[in-house]
Amino acid sequence: MAVYTDVAAEDLAAFIARYDIGRLLSYKGIAEGVENSNYLLHAEAGYFILTLYEKRVAAVDLPFFLGLMEHLASRGINCPQPVKARDGDALGTLCGRPAALVTFLEGMWMRKVDAKHCAAVGEALAKLHLAGSDFKLRRANALSVSGWRPLFESCASRVDDVQHSMHEIIANELDALEASWPRGLPEGVIHADLFPDNVFFLGEKLSGLIDFYFACNDMLAYDIAICLNAWCFENDFSYNFTKGRALLQGYARVRPLNDAELDALPLLARGAALRFLLTRVVDWLNVPPGALVKPKSPQEYFRKLRFHQKAQSVHDYGVEARELA
Amino acid sequence: MAVYTDVAAEDLAAFIARYDIGRLLSYKGIAEGVENSNYLLHAEAGYFILTLYEKRVAAVDLPFFLGLMEHLASRGINCPQPVKARDGDALGTLCGRPAALVTFLEGMWMRKVDAKHCAAVGEALAKLHLAGSDFKLRRANALSVSGWRPLFESCASRVDDVQHSMHEIIANELDALEASWPRGLPEGVIHADLFPDNVFFLGEKLSGLIDFYFACNDMLAYDIAICLNAWCFENDFSYNFTKGRALLQGYARVRPLNDAELDALPLLARGAALRFLLTRVVDWLNVPPGALVKPKSPQEYFRKLRFHQKAQSVHDYGVEARELA
Repeated sequence: MAVYTDVAAEDLAAFIARYDIGRLLSYKGIAEGVENSNYLLHAEAGYFILTLYEKRVAAVDLPFFLGLMEHLASRGINCPQPVKARDGDALGTLCGRPAALVTFLEGMWMRKVDAKHCAAVGEALAKLHLAGSDFKLRRANALSVSGWRPLFESCASRVDDVQHSMHEIIANELDALEASWPRGLPEGVIHADLFPDNVFFLGEKLSGLIDFYFACNDMLAYDIAICLNAWCFENDFSYNFTKGRALLQGYARVRPLNDAELDALPLLARGAALRFLLTRVVDWLNVPPGALVKPKSPQEYFRKLRFHQKAQSVHDYGVEARELA
Repeated sequence: MAVYTDVAAEDLAAFIARYDIGRLLSYKGIAEGVENSNYLLHAEAGYFILTLYEKRVAAVDLPFFLGLMEHLASRGINCPQPVKARDGDALGTLCGRPAALVTFLEGMWMRKVDAKHCAAVGEALAKLHLAGSDFKLRRANALSVSGWRPLFESCASRVDDVQHSMHEIIANELDALEASWPRGLPEGVIHADLFPDNVFFLGEKLSGLIDFYFACNDMLAYDIAICLNAWCFENDFSYNFTKGRALLQGYARVRPLNDAELDALPLLARGAALRFLLTRVVDWLNVPPGALVKPKSPQEYFRKLRFHQKAQSVHDYGVEARELA
């Protein structure tokens, strides 16, 4: 949950006046997203989400994120759409921070995920990858393999405070992944953070995707690996084969995987687990005094990493290669 | 900001099914209120606030609070109205907590208060007092004079950690107020927490009052004293005579004050300052580890108390008695 910047009604009214959305009727800080401040805003023209970008989001990346949402929406992906001010600009300034309005998306994120949700997410991810294929802007993935060692080094001396022997296991894993990280797989725009809280459902139906603030260019199959980690484990961190199979089959129905992608999947899943393990360890060890955000436990991704280390092929994820090709 | 209980969409959908408000379309945890968990909820029938009552609110008081909102709304006060389930009950259970739906109120609370807002608040407070006069349920004010000494005793040994000499000043003030606390003033239902974040405006116009979870029976003029503290000081804690005058005159236009109330005002204002000083000190000294709520500084009400201690009459609040009678 996060509202870092409290916006005064007077300042917000002035900001809103740049847009053709009528008078401001109400706004509430919402407890979603951990990187930015978000408000649900009611103006005469309807409901919108106002985001103030806090310092963890680089202002230079905002045109990529906003442009991507607009591009994807124009390709039929249901995601928030940036609202442009009368001067045509989707990006403004409020309380000294870059700020943008996007359309409000109905739907709810699922706290209790089942295999049907996983199938729908796999399908939506593949559609997102196809829809992003002709997006012109580029953004490198700062949290891919080359970014992991600096993260590890920033916390290496204290990693064993989180869990005994974690230092050795991460160090070995990092060596292994740097040596064997896949190359040459199909690339494109990936969401890179498609966790359950970023996917909305209305009843059984997936109604939209949100939070594109980690989106970047990378291997498409790496995005699948992130989703396997985020969607297909139980609360006790055991892998659920039914969910994994549903997610992978859902994806492959829209975009079949090639042999190299299929072979790489266990390694990509290890990388994805390590990526979230590392950022969670860093957050865990660096909670500022008086922080209003409770960091997520790193243990979860440590356990998931251990699972993926034992996987040999997609068979270990509950599905046969021929079903996905 | 506060969302203590995360509600799963599946559980919420089951809860909503008890009401005639159609299908659930979305819900967001909102960063308002410090006692309870609040969600802004969109159902087919419109927008609502869902409140889950956390442990600081006594379940036995909920019929008073919900009944009061319904009563006030029926008397023309614009406040949230409890929505009844099909079985006629306004109170349900969700995630093991008492929970209620109320109507959503448009409007915004003012971060930058001016004298016009203060006049409108004074007027609204008086209307609230008149509208509450025939409400049948009763609730004692646990945070009036008899509740202050137990609060002080719970933190007395550490009060000087907050500010040097605070212990002595509070102890003396408590003795003085217990000895001279007014009796026999007109009583009725008071809001008891009408701070700026509980008063909504649309443009210049006051559009509604929220958060009745401290409401109780007490002296009506004590509610005015709370508002003087909450609305009429600047950020540097100096009293603003223009705002105070506007608030008092706004109130008296709707409900003139009698002589005893006018005489008691400085003492009531001291009591109100001490009440918020004490609860803030207690909160300040008892922040639980991992708390997601940042307690408000007690210094503010210490400074306000020092101001009121010097006041002799309503003249010291920027207005003459004859203007309010």
